[in-house]
Amino acid sequence: MKFSRLLIPTTKETPNDATLPSHQFLIRGGFINQQGSGLYNYLPLGKIVLEKIRAIVKDELDKAGCNEVQLSFVTPLGFWEKSGRADTMGKEMLRIQDRHQNDFVLSPTNEEAMVELVKNRVKSYKDLPINLYQINTKFRDEARPRFGLLRGREFLMKDGYSFHANKEDMEREFDLMETTYKKIFTRLGLDFRVVKADSGAIGGSGSKEFHVLANSGEDTILVCEDCEYGANIETVYENDDEVDTLNELSYEQLQSKEVTQKCSCGGKLYFKKGIEVGHIFQLGDKYSSALDAKFQDENGKPKAFEMATFGIGVSRLVASVIEQNHDEYGSIWTPSTTPYMVDVIVSNAKKENELETGAKIYEELQQNNISTILDDRKEKKHTYGFKMGDFKLIGFPYAIVVGKKLSDGLVEVVNRKTLESTEVTLDKIVEYIKELVK
Amino acid sequence: MKFSRLLIPTTKETPNDATLPSHQFLIRGGFINQQGSGLYNYLPLGKIVLEKIRAIVKDELDKAGCNEVQLSFVTPLGFWEKSGRADTMGKEMLRIQDRHQNDFVLSPTNEEAMVELVKNRVKSYKDLPINLYQINTKFRDEARPRFGLLRGREFLMKDGYSFHANKEDMEREFDLMETTYKKIFTRLGLDFRVVKADSGAIGGSGSKEFHVLANSGEDTILVCEDCEYGANIETVYENDDEVDTLNELSYEQLQSKEVTQKCSCGGKLYFKKGIEVGHIFQLGDKYSSALDAKFQDENGKPKAFEMATFGIGVSRLVASVIEQNHDEYGSIWTPSTTPYMVDVIVSNAKKENELETGAKIYEELQQNNISTILDDRKEKKHTYGFKMGDFKLIGFPYAIVVGKKLSDGLVEVVNRKTLESTEVTLDKIVEYIKELVK
Repeated sequence: MKFSRLLIPTTKETPNDATLPSHQFLIRGGFINQQGSGLYNYLPLGKIVLEKIRAIVKDELDKAGCNEVQLSFVTPLGFWEKSGRADTMGKEMLRIQDRHQNDFVLSPTNEEAMVELVKNRVKSYKDLPINLYQINTKFRDEARPRFGLLRGREFLMKDGYSFHANKEDMEREFDLMETTYKKIFTRLGLDFRVVKADSGAIGGSGSKEFHVLANSGEDTILVCEDCEYGANIETVYENDDEVDTLNELSYEQLQSKEVTQKCSCGGKLYFKKGIEVGHIFQLGDKYSSALDAKFQDENGKPKAFEMATFGIGVSRLVASVIEQNHDEYGSIWTPSTTPYMVDVIVSNAKKENELETGAKIYEELQQNNISTILDDRKEKKHTYGFKMGDFKLIGFPYAIVVGKKLSDGLVEVVNRKTLESTEVTLDKIVEYIKELVK
Repeated sequence: MKFSRLLIPTTKETPNDATLPSHQFLIRGGFINQQGSGLYNYLPLGKIVLEKIRAIVKDELDKAGCNEVQLSFVTPLGFWEKSGRADTMGKEMLRIQDRHQNDFVLSPTNEEAMVELVKNRVKSYKDLPINLYQINTKFRDEARPRFGLLRGREFLMKDGYSFHANKEDMEREFDLMETTYKKIFTRLGLDFRVVKADSGAIGGSGSKEFHVLANSGEDTILVCEDCEYGANIETVYENDDEVDTLNELSYEQLQSKEVTQKCSCGGKLYFKKGIEVGHIFQLGDKYSSALDAKFQDENGKPKAFEMATFGIGVSRLVASVIEQNHDEYGSIWTPSTTPYMVDVIVSNAKKENELETGAKIYEELQQNNISTILDDRKEKKHTYGFKMGDFKLIGFPYAIVVGKKLSDGLVEVVNRKTLESTEVTLDKIVEYIKELVK
């Protein structure tokens, strides 16, 4: 793709309400813009990132045997009355009325709708298990939307729901989804922890959260130095005041706090800040019973489905990647989430030899299946410094600078993360990049 | 994919309100289900079809240089007040209020939001033209939702908006989009006509519709026997009563009607029924002026953008394929829209040699990049007749039946469209199918 053909409105202006790096850099880098309180548009670069994350989530779920569906975003309030959640969901669930004064809801989640879908369509234990998911728009009417994509009102969520003949099979799927989620977050290039979200019975937790570690995270979690898992502080401290106090502390303040509690494995615990990007939850028959959704068991008797539910905040992940990967200049995308792997910067696109050389490198990289963007912009303001600033702000993993040294047969490769630059001869540049990104 | 691992709840029951073939067969074939009036869920097969259509639309638009974005579905009512459409859109535009009593709209279209997005971000004639599109949820609160996916309330639409420095460039893009739309509908395997939607000035029409020809179509169009284009009857008959009368006639009744009017090229016109699946429209500066969206022209002066808008009914296309391609038994998908190209039917999956042979063919076809589903279902009810019924109802282009003739080294290939079957020897089956689908 050529820079000149893509709408990438980078800016130096930071919105007043943007306190977090992801919020600032996603807006300043031309990835998103705000359309209203908690409502965001994805501009071309943001849409590419969103779709890359969506594709990885879909790929791993499909490999694990899940079925993709897509539910209507507007759901009848009647569904929520049957489950009792019409009363308990509060104002975050936005109720609407159509022209005939019928009541609907902008879906904040879809347990009820998914149970209604499965009801009378999955009839026998022989048809089980089944795990249905969608990656679809959700709406939660937050009282105080903030932090850009981290706490918007309209957002993209992957919500999955599995149906089973018995608890054992549901627990098997729960474990499979934990494994699948780990694969997803690993492929996204994220440093994350699986966190017990409730104290649970011996032998396992019925609710686990997946947190991306980031100093700016909203949640405080305890991480064990010996074993793999962490714990939400609510599961460690029984005193609510203590939990609230800890949650108020900044990352830096938490680092100096001593932890007296021990991990259940006996290991030492220390504090981290995390952003919740996934949650898996054993539901049992709560919704299937409430909505009278039953199957015939092996004895021919009707039985309510055992269920589990699995969520991933897809649009939230866009911001989480940046909360974990940025510096003072801008975003630093991971290889699997970056809109393009290489930014070929033509220092002065009015110079024909620079533009031609840049275009040639760009085409060769593309032929080698390395996603590349060519910064061919040629207005007066598009100086080398301007383009390098955009590279650092947007955060492509690598830049190739075609500039002054071209007469010596040299181009410069800049690593966005380290900001180190290396001179490479023109005839070696494609091989050099192939080696870097493999 | 294996049939046994995918939720495909085929049924013999036709909903009372389903009068059209696409509505009946999409529900009976397990592609969609109704969640509320005009609200549909996509089950796994329906979701695959929807995504195949979406991917073709995206691919051709990207090739034509358009930029994909994604706007918030919930838009501030304020946008619509600025353009004046808050007053003119009527009840189809559903207004909602959030918890703070702020007014919003479930987007029925996005001219205003897209102008707001471009405003102050595209500043100079040097940044033009730009064509931004999204494939996103829309909502129109139809008074009487009907015909399944053809006139739902929540639907998936591709809406594109282009911005230009002058009218000539806008007309160039309009023509490019006409060409692009033709490529899209051709790739989808549809018989369609481009139809002038207004009488227009000499030298071109400012509004063109794309109609999929289908006897059940809601629109009556005139097609010329000599030239390529058709015309909406409203552009040919000036008398509204006459237009209304014609619109009431069935396809069969229309065939016996004589047409006295001539095409502008002089050719003879005849009636067809069509389903509108695309619309391209020259907007001029209507919205950019109303929303004060300007760029600097070559003389440094502020000027409102010239605009055009381009729509495709993506979910409507799912139904349109079936309105044009079905028989008494069910759907007949086109090669580019079918969820799977080949259905390998194991007549009796309890017989090990049949199941093994079916599985082997299935794997070999997949290795040859031919998308295949294996009907490995093995309950008592899953007889040969049951599976063949599902094949005809669902509408995969080809079935391979592994059954009785296996002992003679033969399988049967069934063409869904013609229902002709051909015996093929086992060792030749993969080559035979490769030849068929290439």
